Amino acid sequence: MKNNRSVFQITAFHRPDQACDTDITPFFLRASIVRAEKISGFPSHIHREYEIIFAARKEYSCLINNREYNLVPDDLLIVCPEDTHEDICPAGAEFFSIAFKLQCPGLKNSINFLMPDNEKNRVLRSCHIFRNIFSGIISKSQSRSPAAGYLLDSLLRTFFWTLICELPEQALDENFKDIVYRTSFKSKVFSMFRSHLFSSLSLTAMGEIFGLSSRAFSGKCSEILGESPSRAFNRYKLEYACHLLADTEMSINEISSRLAFANQYHFSRTFRKFYNKTPGSIRADKTGD
Amino acid sequence: MKNNRSVFQITAFHRPDQACDTDITPFFLRASIVRAEKISGFPSHIHREYEIIFAARKEYSCLINNREYNLVPDDLLIVCPEDTHEDICPAGAEFFSIAFKLQCPGLKNSINFLMPDNEKNRVLRSCHIFRNIFSGIISKSQSRSPAAGYLLDSLLRTFFWTLICELPEQALDENFKDIVYRTSFKSKVFSMFRSHLFSSLSLTAMGEIFGLSSRAFSGKCSEILGESPSRAFNRYKLEYACHLLADTEMSINEISSRLAFANQYHFSRTFRKFYNKTPGSIRADKTGD
Repeated sequence: MKNNRSVFQITAFHRPDQACDTDITPFFLRASIVRAEKISGFPSHIHREYEIIFAARKEYSCLINNREYNLVPDDLLIVCPEDTHEDICPAGAEFFSIAFKLQCPGLKNSINFLMPDNEKNRVLRSCHIFRNIFSGIISKSQSRSPAAGYLLDSLLRTFFWTLICELPEQALDENFKDIVYRTSFKSKVFSMFRSHLFSSLSLTAMGEIFGLSSRAFSGKCSEILGESPSRAFNRYKLEYACHLLADTEMSINEISSRLAFANQYHFSRTFRKFYNKTPGSIRADKTGD
Repeated sequence: MKNNRSVFQITAFHRPDQACDTDITPFFLRASIVRAEKISGFPSHIHREYEIIFAARKEYSCLINNREYNLVPDDLLIVCPEDTHEDICPAGAEFFSIAFKLQCPGLKNSINFLMPDNEKNRVLRSCHIFRNIFSGIISKSQSRSPAAGYLLDSLLRTFFWTLICELPEQALDENFKDIVYRTSFKSKVFSMFRSHLFSSLSLTAMGEIFGLSSRAFSGKCSEILGESPSRAFNRYKLEYACHLLADTEMSINEISSRLAFANQYHFSRTFRKFYNKTPGSIRADKTGD
C-alpha cells in the first residue's frame, strides 16, 4: 500500500544532529512597546547594539548620523552598532523596538548584516507582515510558562530572518551574505548525505540535486567543506558506521551493506584510510568494556 | 521630553551575549506533506526520532506500541523515539509530518519531552493554530534564498515551543520541565542583571522582581546558579568592567562609578577578590600591547 502515497518533502534542515560553529545567531536583548503620551524625544546617543524600530501608530522621526528618517505606520528602520541616534515623535505615537546582537561562534569579531553607509537600505516601507509578528511576540510575552522564554526567542529569530529575507540583496553586507550562503550550502549538503545514508550517490547525482554540473558542485564543496564531495560523504557514512559498531549488534558485513558500500572489503579499506583502525578494532573496544 | 514616553518592556531575553549549554534545542531533520492517493499504509517500524503528525484532510489512523489512535483534521499526534509505529489512511487523506531530535549541549544523553507511557498525552485535539504554522513553513520552503534555511529553522523552533506551551503540564517529562525551568530562571536572572548593570540592586529588590522573598530567591539562585545573587551580580558587573578596562579609555574611577560600585576602593577590592589581580594591571596589560 505504501506506493499509493505521495510524499512531498518540504525540506530537510540545517546540518542534522549538531550545531555548526559558523551558524549565525541573533541574541535578543530586549523588546519594548514605546508610547508617547505627549510629544517626546530621546537625546543623541551612540548605539552599542542593533535596534529595529517599527512604527505602529502615527509618525516616528529621527536622526541617524545626522541624516533624517521619517516613518509612518508599518515602516521599519534599522539602527546599527556605532550609529549616533536621536529621535522625536508626536503625542499619541507608538512604536515597537527590538534590540539584539549578532553572533557567529566560529568568528572572533562581531558580524554586521547591513551594508555600511547604505542610507536608503535602513528603511523598509509598508511591511505589514511585521505587524503580525510583533502582535505574536506581544501576546506570548504575557505568558508565565517557563517555556514562554524559548517560544519568544523562536519568534524573534523568525522576525530577524524574515527581515533578512525582505531586505533587498544589495542592502546586505557581503561578508554576512557569504556566511549565510556557506552555512546554507553546508547544511544542504549534509541534509543530502543524511537522506542518502543507506544508498550510494554519484557525483553527477549530487550535482543534479544542487542544479550544478559535477565540476561546479565539486569545486564548491572543496571550497566550502574543505574536501571533495565523495570524501565528505564517506566521512559522513563512516561516522554513522562507528555508531553502529559501538552501539549495536550488527555485523561488520551488515553495516557495510546497510551503508551501501560496494562490499565489506571496500568498507574496511575506506574505514582504515579515515581512522587508521579497522572496523573490527572499534567493535572489539566495545566488547572489551 | 523623555519623560513623556511610556516604555512597556515586553521582555528581556535569554542569557544575553552568549548561548547557555543547558539550552534545549530541537534539531529538525525533515518536514513533509504526505498525500494518500488511494487507501495507503506504512508498515510497522521503530522510530529513532520524534515525529509530529498533523491531520490536514480526512482521517489518519495508526498503532503506536499496539495502541490505536485516530485523528481527524486539526488533530496532532506525537510519536517518540523507540516507539513502534504503523499507520493507515483513506484515499484523499493528507497529513503533515515533522521529524526532529532534542538536544541539550550540557547533557550527555538525549532528552525526552513527553511523559513516557502517558498515552492520552500523545494527542492534541483541534489545534487550529498549528495549521497556520504549517502553512507558513510550507510557503517559506519554496524560497530559494540562502537565508530561507535559517527562517525555516526559526519557524520550526516556533512550532516546537508552541507545542510545548499547548501541551498540558502533566504531559511533559519531569526532567525536561526541570531543565526548562532552570534555563528560564537563569536567563531571567541575567536579563535582570543586564538591565541593572549601571545601578545597584538589593537582594530584596531582586526578590521583588521575581515575586519571591529574599530568602526564597537567594535559595533558588544558589541552587541554580551555584552562587549567591549578589556574588553573581558582582561577577556579571566585573566581566563588563574587564571589557571597559581593556577596550576603552575610561578611568578606573569612572568605571567604578559607572557600574554603581559604592566607591573606587570597594570596586578594586571586589575586583581583586574575583580575579586575584588589580583593575590597574588589566589596564596596564592593555597599554602594554
